[in-house]
Amino acid sequence: MRLQMMTWAEVEASVARDSGILMPIGSTEQHGPTGLIGTDALTAEVIAWRAGELADAVVGPTIPVGMAHHHMAFAGSMTLKPSTLIAVITEYVLSLAHHGYRRFVFVNGHGGNIPTVNAAFYEVYAALYGHGPVEGPELRCRCISWFELPGVQRLTKELFGSKEGAHATASEISVTRAAFPDTVKSAPLEPAQAPISRFFDARDYRRRHPDGRMGSDPSVASAPAGRQVIDTAAAELAAAYRQFGTMG
Amino acid sequence: MRLQMMTWAEVEASVARDSGILMPIGSTEQHGPTGLIGTDALTAEVIAWRAGELADAVVGPTIPVGMAHHHMAFAGSMTLKPSTLIAVITEYVLSLAHHGYRRFVFVNGHGGNIPTVNAAFYEVYAALYGHGPVEGPELRCRCISWFELPGVQRLTKELFGSKEGAHATASEISVTRAAFPDTVKSAPLEPAQAPISRFFDARDYRRRHPDGRMGSDPSVASAPAGRQVIDTAAAELAAAYRQFGTMG
Amino acid sequence: MRLQMMTWAEVEASVARDSGILMPIGSTEQHGPTGLIGTDALTAEVIAWRAGELADAVVGPTIPVGMAHHHMAFAGSMTLKPSTLIAVITEYVLSLAHHGYRRFVFVNGHGGNIPTVNAAFYEVYAALYGHGPVEGPELRCRCISWFELPGVQRLTKELFGSKEGAHATASEISVTRAAFPDTVKSAPLEPAQAPISRFFDARDYRRRHPDGRMGSDPSVASAPAGRQVIDTAAAELAAAYRQFGTMG
Amino acid sequence: MRLQMMTWAEVEASVARDSGILMPIGSTEQHGPTGLIGTDALTAEVIAWRAGELADAVVGPTIPVGMAHHHMAFAGSMTLKPSTLIAVITEYVLSLAHHGYRRFVFVNGHGGNIPTVNAAFYEVYAALYGHGPVEGPELRCRCISWFELPGVQRLTKELFGSKEGAHATASEISVTRAAFPDTVKSAPLEPAQAPISRFFDARDYRRRHPDGRMGSDPSVASAPAGRQVIDTAAAELAAAYRQFGTMG
Amino acid sequence: MRLQMMTWAEVEASVARDSGILMPIGSTEQHGPTGLIGTDALTAEVIAWRAGELADAVVGPTIPVGMAHHHMAFAGSMTLKPSTLIAVITEYVLSLAHHGYRRFVFVNGHGGNIPTVNAAFYEVYAALYGHGPVEGPELRCRCISWFELPGVQRLTKELFGSKEGAHATASEISVTRAAFPDTVKSAPLEPAQAPISRFFDARDYRRRHPDGRMGSDPSVASAPAGRQVIDTAAAELAAAYRQFGTMG
Amino acid sequence: MRLQMMTWAEVEASVARDSGILMPIGSTEQHGPTGLIGTDALTAEVIAWRAGELADAVVGPTIPVGMAHHHMAFAGSMTLKPSTLIAVITEYVLSLAHHGYRRFVFVNGHGGNIPTVNAAFYEVYAALYGHGPVEGPELRCRCISWFELPGVQRLTKELFGSKEGAHATASEISVTRAAFPDTVKSAPLEPAQAPISRFFDARDYRRRHPDGRMGSDPSVASAPAGRQVIDTAAAELAAAYRQFGTMG
Repeated sequence: MRLQMMTWAEVEASVARDSGILMPIGSTEQHGPTGLIGTDALTAEVIAWRAGELADAVVGPTIPVGMAHHHMAFAGSMTLKPSTLIAVITEYVLSLAHHGYRRFVFVNGHGGNIPTVNAAFYEVYAALYGHGPVEGPELRCRCISWFELPGVQRLTKELFGSKEGAHATASEISVTRAAFPDTVKSAPLEPAQAPISRFFDARDYRRRHPDGRMGSDPSVASAPAGRQVIDTAAAELAAAYRQFGTMG
Repeated sequence: MRLQMMTWAEVEASVARDSGILMPIGSTEQHGPTGLIGTDALTAEVIAWRAGELADAVVGPTIPVGMAHHHMAFAGSMTLKPSTLIAVITEYVLSLAHHGYRRFVFVNGHGGNIPTVNAAFYEVYAALYGHGPVEGPELRCRCISWFELPGVQRLTKELFGSKEGAHATASEISVTRAAFPDTVKSAPLEPAQAPISRFFDARDYRRRHPDGRMGSDPSVASAPAGRQVIDTAAAELAAAYRQFGTMG
Repeated sequence: MRLQMMTWAEVEASVARDSGILMPIGSTEQHGPTGLIGTDALTAEVIAWRAGELADAVVGPTIPVGMAHHHMAFAGSMTLKPSTLIAVITEYVLSLAHHGYRRFVFVNGHGGNIPTVNAAFYEVYAALYGHGPVEGPELRCRCISWFELPGVQRLTKELFGSKEGAHATASEISVTRAAFPDTVKSAPLEPAQAPISRFFDARDYRRRHPDGRMGSDPSVASAPAGRQVIDTAAAELAAAYRQFGTMG
Repeated sequence: MRLQMMTWAEVEASVARDSGILMPIGSTEQHGPTGLIGTDALTAEVIAWRAGELADAVVGPTIPVGMAHHHMAFAGSMTLKPSTLIAVITEYVLSLAHHGYRRFVFVNGHGGNIPTVNAAFYEVYAALYGHGPVEGPELRCRCISWFELPGVQRLTKELFGSKEGAHATASEISVTRAAFPDTVKSAPLEPAQAPISRFFDARDYRRRHPDGRMGSDPSVASAPAGRQVIDTAAAELAAAYRQFGTMG
Repeated sequence: MRLQMMTWAEVEASVARDSGILMPIGSTEQHGPTGLIGTDALTAEVIAWRAGELADAVVGPTIPVGMAHHHMAFAGSMTLKPSTLIAVITEYVLSLAHHGYRRFVFVNGHGGNIPTVNAAFYEVYAALYGHGPVEGPELRCRCISWFELPGVQRLTKELFGSKEGAHATASEISVTRAAFPDTVKSAPLEPAQAPISRFFDARDYRRRHPDGRMGSDPSVASAPAGRQVIDTAAAELAAAYRQFGTMG
Repeated sequence: MRLQMMTWAEVEASVARDSGILMPIGSTEQHGPTGLIGTDALTAEVIAWRAGELADAVVGPTIPVGMAHHHMAFAGSMTLKPSTLIAVITEYVLSLAHHGYRRFVFVNGHGGNIPTVNAAFYEVYAALYGHGPVEGPELRCRCISWFELPGVQRLTKELFGSKEGAHATASEISVTRAAFPDTVKSAPLEPAQAPISRFFDARDYRRRHPDGRMGSDPSVASAPAGRQVIDTAAAELAAAYRQFGTMG
């Protein structure tokens, strides 16, 4: 159930039954020669929507642009500063908390968002409580990156082995091929498997990973594999969401 | 051409040919008993995508949550503070300017965003130039609200007359019905045509407009009407975009 | 009654009778070869003070510097970033709300302020209520630009016809001549009537409007005309203020 | 020469001759039973304008609302947060620096502004140079509180002795009586001379100084005394300004 | 070599030889019945100083208060908001970058800082480069939490097994006992080993971990064990620092 | 009693007895050819710790980096922007206020911090009360610079006469020699006594004071003198703290 597709009266009734919500967050950034710039937003969204169906949960609007400063040496990449993304997440959560939402599962599609999203949760608590818990509702925020779910990791290892990689991965490109069959891109991949190394800023990233990929050989990506990844990720997420709703 | 669906190499080639971009911006807020919470984001997106096809223009990621504080007395509404929305717009534009984009047409679906979006453009210029123009690229930013386009206004008058209204309008609900036929909602509308008056904050809005509508009778909305609105708005936008690209 | 000229005990007694206040806001920016840099602040102040007398209303301190980034290519222009002006307006309103003021009419002298002032009002509501209306006083903020008042527009059309223009207008220069007879400037105006066109940033503004005027021929300005403008604007404002005080 | 009363061409010519400027900054806050709420803004303005004439210096627009949180328990007082006032001062200075101004003398009328104004100067330098001096113009900012000028202190001691006090002083009320003869207020002063003590926040201030005065007996204020204070302060300021312009 | 103990000329000479620096960052927060409130700052500092000796590296001033909002239900805990800590880290790094430092290893003593510190590094890059790499120095920032170093984890497993825990750990309390023998505290620990569970905000943390410990039995802490931990951590850090200095 | 060395239960008991706290704040900046970069942080800390013993007061963690933009032309100097330092001080105070602390004495070691620290106190009050005092605890904040204490000034005059100076003073270098005997530096001082003059930004500071000292001849500094300064300053501070605790 997408929040965007409900009326306010439907939301009012729904939040009275279940005060949890799934919040997709992605990024808009290069994904190598054959990956879509919107990969991280599109995958988070597709997986969150499917998980919402499985868990009978409301799914909020997707945050499409995240923290991707390290990709800014490649055309089309967009980024918010960490402090701006923190403000955005804080205001999304506080808006929904005003209507009674209490448990927020951010469904994340981009590794580079993880520190900022987790930092943001404490900015939310600080905005709500000041410098210590006093009155007011008690919120719970959690960030789950779909590509870190154990079942997904088992599956991608099985499907792609070492070709999965760390950026512009075989699995994420498979997910976009499953969800958007019209957007399959082809381009030479040289070398077949991209190098991988620790990087620092955007210049450094491009110097070390000249075509944008990190460690991956996305030529093995496929729509059928993407469907498996979506199903697995959504099922794990739905289970995590339900457990989150009942934990003490 | 959605930016999200391109590779970085495609963006690099595209921006060299045309340094303009369409940027949809909407809102996530109540739209009366039968309107979708995502109406303003969905309509801006649908119309911008269609305009992008007509004008052969790139369309950036949609900003789904805008300035809707006055709707916060209705469940499901979300809002950014004006100052946060200004930061988001500024960083979207500066990210894309780094890759060579120079002309930004924000395609807006929400009246409440207009002051903040226009204020944001000067925050962009200040971020780029400091307190006066010196070096650096020259950007042009413009906000076009699709529902204010002259042809759209003529059409909605023709289609709906005085039932169009000012919020949860017949035309915007028609657009979502055209684009998302599965999301048609039915609910009693009492009175048939909602009252309209000047309002101030969110409490005041709800007191004056108890079911969220302002001046509209959306029972006249329909998918076929929505298709006409989309076509008209997209054609006008495409023309404005092309003219913007060539103005001295 | 200027707030600046009252004692705190007088304010305390006055706000108990009438919780409204007029707040002049202007700008400090070029106004062509013969207009004063302070035109927008001076006109807003003069008109607000006169309106205050007519409506028996308190008038707060003038905000002398507004959002004028687009004038920064001309010497003497000053500007706040939109986000800073939002902070200033928010704190002015919250300061006065602490003492019991509830209805704020900003009397605006500068078109470039309009988006930011209107955005600021929602920053005020957000500062006061967080992400939704809960407890606390209910404020009403409104921005009236004197040059957009219907009676003023009728009058300036009558007085100046098409020579009024859009910046460094005949009417605003007339108002400063009426109020400050010692500051009449003379300088060649070439062409007599300035060009008018859509502009974007400060460089673009100067390129299109090389002497700073936009569409105006201020050689027709005069002190007697200024007195008429002041009287008309103040009377309309006073009426709007009184109606604002009584609206449901 | 008030900046507000000049044209942009006059400013351009003037700043080429003298890159200094006087910047009045005041406050809008209670000044006891008989003092005007605008006292600090009005006195700074009057004295800066007179000094501008003596020194043939340009005088910028007055900052009318300063840092007066400690007066907020008295009706009519207004305040900016220190961080907001810092932003305002920074943007005033950077606006004028863009046009060539290099030496800024803030003429201050309110003791409570002193820390924030001095802190702001380093925010200006940080905004201009980042974390260390590199390129760019070299600015000099200085804050002179007129009531701390040695000649003024000698004069007020002579005129008022121990009745001068520390807030709602005999001298500042005299200055407003000299400048605005129509605004003389009368109210009982009990005790004749107000108590004086160290205070912390606004509640504490009011508890210790129940009518708003601190240490003063403003019944000795007079317009003739005010004229002497204005003359003395303006002459000292003009001398300081000239010396500032020539220091190595 | 502590930066605090050098003269500016010594720093100037030193940074010319080695542009790296160790930056200790801790926290000021409860550490259970027997742990010091300053544990995370003290351990980071002691270990960074020792590593500095081993690696012949400069060690900057310790950031003593970090992101510890979740500990605020226990007396004495202090916290910065994530966005404020990001500003502090950004300005520390930019200050030192102005003098030629290029490689920053933050030596972290507090798990709760990790997201914010990593987010801050991209705020640094954004502050330095805007929205993409252009000119300017190339910085490298890295965060190493001493308790996550592989050798330290092997050692604490060996020394304390499952009694180590996750907060108020046996190892960190051992480090403070080694470094500050006078500060050994004794208090009953009930139960001997504290519970461990996922927590959200500060209220939730205290409810689940009523004496502040998480999973630990610090009764096994000892000064000799602390000396081993310090030695191991410092040696690993020194090696990581040297490798960081030479990586391509 | 250092807060860092207490357990949370000890803090809880202690704050119930005495709601005051000493807060050392210093700076990290050049101190001439023979002074330590950490001088201002080290001296504030040493003196605050000793005062804490004398007054039986808790001493919070030291703020090691302050507002020192004017020293940034010398290697090793670090600075926060005034607005960032205000945020840090505000959050330190609010954290401790949450646990019951009510009276804060900042023990300051750096003249350049004074405006910002005093401005910060009003940011604290604004954060706590909004735009006027309503509910909530009543805090009292005070800044005492140890080098401005009357007894310290008498002593340094006696010890060093005119050689004390204004930056890199004989007394502060004596204090670090007393506290850290291993850090005595020797370097030529040319001229013996440094020049002193009014300065503006960092470039200007270095041009006027090429070796960093201002007015001082620190060759007269000594550890025994430092011990006297520490004892005198700590005793005065302890007395001021006790008096602060009992004032009405």
